[in-house]
Amino acid sequence: MTTIVMKFGGSSVADIKIMKNAVSKISAEINNNNKVIVVVSAMGNTTDNLVKKIKEVSTIYDATEYDAILSTGENISSSLMALLLQKEGINARSWQGWQIPINTTDNHSNARILNIGTKNLEEKFLAGMQVAIIAGFQGISTNNRVTTLGRGGSDTSAVALAAAIKAERCDIYTDVDGIYTTDPRITSNAKKLDKISYEEMLELASLGAKVLHTRSVELAMQYKVKLRVLNSFNEGTGTILCDEEDIMEKRVVSGITFSKNEAKLTLLSVKDKPGVAGIVFDCLSKANINVDMIIQNISDNNLTDVTFSCPTDQVDMARSSLENGKNKNILEYKKLDVDIEVSKISIVGIGMRSHSGIAQTMFKTLGDENINIKVISTSEIKISVLIERKYLELAVQVLHEAFELSKV
Amino acid sequence: MTTIVMKFGGSSVADIKIMKNAVSKISAEINNNNKVIVVVSAMGNTTDNLVKKIKEVSTIYDATEYDAILSTGENISSSLMALLLQKEGINARSWQGWQIPINTTDNHSNARILNIGTKNLEEKFLAGMQVAIIAGFQGISTNNRVTTLGRGGSDTSAVALAAAIKAERCDIYTDVDGIYTTDPRITSNAKKLDKISYEEMLELASLGAKVLHTRSVELAMQYKVKLRVLNSFNEGTGTILCDEEDIMEKRVVSGITFSKNEAKLTLLSVKDKPGVAGIVFDCLSKANINVDMIIQNISDNNLTDVTFSCPTDQVDMARSSLENGKNKNILEYKKLDVDIEVSKISIVGIGMRSHSGIAQTMFKTLGDENINIKVISTSEIKISVLIERKYLELAVQVLHEAFELSKV
Repeated sequence: MTTIVMKFGGSSVADIKIMKNAVSKISAEINNNNKVIVVVSAMGNTTDNLVKKIKEVSTIYDATEYDAILSTGENISSSLMALLLQKEGINARSWQGWQIPINTTDNHSNARILNIGTKNLEEKFLAGMQVAIIAGFQGISTNNRVTTLGRGGSDTSAVALAAAIKAERCDIYTDVDGIYTTDPRITSNAKKLDKISYEEMLELASLGAKVLHTRSVELAMQYKVKLRVLNSFNEGTGTILCDEEDIMEKRVVSGITFSKNEAKLTLLSVKDKPGVAGIVFDCLSKANINVDMIIQNISDNNLTDVTFSCPTDQVDMARSSLENGKNKNILEYKKLDVDIEVSKISIVGIGMRSHSGIAQTMFKTLGDENINIKVISTSEIKISVLIERKYLELAVQVLHEAFELSKV
Repeated sequence: MTTIVMKFGGSSVADIKIMKNAVSKISAEINNNNKVIVVVSAMGNTTDNLVKKIKEVSTIYDATEYDAILSTGENISSSLMALLLQKEGINARSWQGWQIPINTTDNHSNARILNIGTKNLEEKFLAGMQVAIIAGFQGISTNNRVTTLGRGGSDTSAVALAAAIKAERCDIYTDVDGIYTTDPRITSNAKKLDKISYEEMLELASLGAKVLHTRSVELAMQYKVKLRVLNSFNEGTGTILCDEEDIMEKRVVSGITFSKNEAKLTLLSVKDKPGVAGIVFDCLSKANINVDMIIQNISDNNLTDVTFSCPTDQVDMARSSLENGKNKNILEYKKLDVDIEVSKISIVGIGMRSHSGIAQTMFKTLGDENINIKVISTSEIKISVLIERKYLELAVQVLHEAFELSKV
């Protein structure tokens, strides 16, 4: 008898009627004689509504109370799911993070799982429990307070539980059929991938493809958890995440991902001396700016330009941290140039390691459409560029064609 | 430095704006150099909405999951209250039942508090915490699961905490100015009482005056907790609950209370032999009927009539449990007579112990208005009668006059 972990996201538990899809998926695993651990997100937009209530009090808040409030969403959905399963005659019960326990750091609102106690779960399974419904996204700190794992953290709860309990596999149920070569809303040629390597998924997840929480992919890779992404509303086979070695025919490029609302900021004529870049990004880090790409060009007369990108909704904070009198005096830059009309587009593929000419194809394809590349950044299996936002959809479409992704 | 317990009910924390009234009441106690324990209910009709969600799944449900769901309401309100106080520069934090811990029986949805650990609270007060905001209505069972104390149970949480921590007093903030001689919506002559004895309040609470949870009054009486009922929306002095001995001038009658939607059920011509009444109320108890008054008259030809009352919304269940073939055969009654158009009205007062003629005044007053008394039941400090529902308001008004309650 093996254990399966099944995770249902917010849209898969949006209301009681929709939750019944999940119930039938879970029943099927029970009928296959599996023990099942179910991890649930909060229903629909519950979490957003709770965040709104907190912001009604203040936009600056104590993260411990934020976590105590947000975690209630998963407490409700896990218990409702237990009631629905009980109605089908299944021996199910809900578990809150502290009851298991799921021990985390005390880095509230963005805690990391330290370890998971499996004794309580194992005892209850031995005593006849068929399904443990676990409130995702939450844990308990060493100070005995409720923590949350960051938005999307239920994926990480699921993978960590699968690793801790040595589950046969971890199925992530969403409202899409799996991982696509790109967003099907941008091009109808987008194709679902049957398999994708952890490494590629990591790049896609951190680049903005919102199907999986980045840390869940890291954990799955580290603990070799067999991860699948499936649609809770139909019967497809989804996308399997696996080691690179398990993908026979390696694609050069597996997917194209993008982040629409990016901004490009450039500090012009900064003194080119050791430590300056450090000061710039120290300012930004203190202001909690998610700096993404960073570029510094060669210097001229001991002056250089430093360019970086961040989400557009952080531009005001970034600007005020750099233009603040004290920081401005230290940095002695001439001007801060801000472009809030850019998008990031990235191509990802493990095949890039062994194939040359990928960057060239990307740049030529964009050039042929007169799309200017503003910034370039690369990793071993990824190339990202910033382009003018108005060309974003066109760029995705032509790159999808150029790398023949509709034929995967 | 003394500790004060302050409890805010659902209407006193209905939204962020209303919660600010509570914040100023709490700030005032802090400025008086008190340590404060705040107990909160869920915001407004949160609990009702959660019950609705549960009933969408099933009307028959596992009470452990019901408790896990309902307790989220107080988790949210306690954390929001902590955030509001922090904004005023007050060192406040929220506590869930399991964090304190508030240990209860595992009688889910109607658990009783067994004991309260005060060590964690005391440590945090020593470390600088000024206000502990405690989620009311909830606790933790010996099985490590979340329990709730029954609707209105936050009052009981507050009194139990006041007893455990040996608080100076326990203030219950509501949306009314205190305990009244009767419901002011029925007669504008109703007067707020400055003091009331625990015993009287117990009768009033259990008779349907919804200001305080019955068990909270029992606990306050047992542990000599100085209890006050106040309005969170203004500055009044409220009503103080105290020992009978602390009320100098004992009123004969302190209050008139009523329960509008009652039903009277009579089993006609039941065999008058030992055990029959036991069977009747065993049937009703198994159907979870809240039987209130019970009357059995003298028998005639070894046949007797058994009358009882219950809330109107339980009449169908009561009827089906008594008319169920098996029970009907055992009981061999001739007919079940049901009157769903009755109300219960009660007069309560510790002075009844030493004054005679109270019942007579009550019956004569009603008689003078041609109000027929259908059933009578008495305790040491209370007389209750069932009357036709259409006379309810008139009866309250004339009794209020007859016992000169507008002059208290």
